[in-house]
Amino acid sequence: MTAIPDPLSTTLAALADPTRRAILARLTRGDIPVGELARPFDMTLPAISKHLKVLERAGLIARGREAQRRPCRLEAAPLRQVADWVATYRQFWEHRLDRLESYLQTEQAHAKRRARKAGSRAGKGK
Amino acid sequence: MTAIPDPLSTTLAALADPTRRAILARLTRGDIPVGELARPFDMTLPAISKHLKVLERAGLIARGREAQRRPCRLEAAPLRQVADWVATYRQFWEHRLDRLESYLQTEQAHAKRRARKAGSRAGKGK
Repeated sequence: MTAIPDPLSTTLAALADPTRRAILARLTRGDIPVGELARPFDMTLPAISKHLKVLERAGLIARGREAQRRPCRLEAAPLRQVADWVATYRQFWEHRLDRLESYLQTEQAHAKRRARKAGSRAGKGK
Repeated sequence: MTAIPDPLSTTLAALADPTRRAILARLTRGDIPVGELARPFDMTLPAISKHLKVLERAGLIARGREAQRRPCRLEAAPLRQVADWVATYRQFWEHRLDRLESYLQTEQAHAKRRARKAGSRAGKGK
């Protein structure tokens, strides 16, 4: 299992790094040559190249064949897989928000009732 | 950065394993005691416990306090974070599908035109 990871595991592992996610975010603005891509990161070119290799292996980027520039391009297909997988859990976070909302509504109703009671008691006391 | 990973990286790393994703999938059917959770997996209890620890650290599961049973519960909030993050890339895989669709439509139109031309030529030949 560790030897040949499934595609979704490979994608998720590639995404589990803030630098690699920042590289993808930069590529949303268009294809960028490797050298330019490395600039905003406080990293050596070999360090960036290592990250790019991880992203390429996961199919999240593709690299052009032009020898010097080797422009990187975002490949979004594996991200769709992640979106499809995580969407199967949507009901679980939505239910939780529903429960939280109904709890808050109940609490508000209780608070109003207590305030009304306190008000009528204060009225009787006058 | 490696020392204190950000929450999204921790979540993605926890999800980058088919056994851990299978554990989450099982928990969608309800809370399950650790011992029972380990059963369908061909793994020792310590191996499963290690996976549970990774999931717990990422906030993807919570464990009950009952000494023996320690039921595990799915916590979907970090999955929502993943969904929100990946949704920012939706336009990139949708655009790609749009491009593929328009390419296929153009190809079909060309094929029809070629077929029509071939038909009219065959007609003239008669």
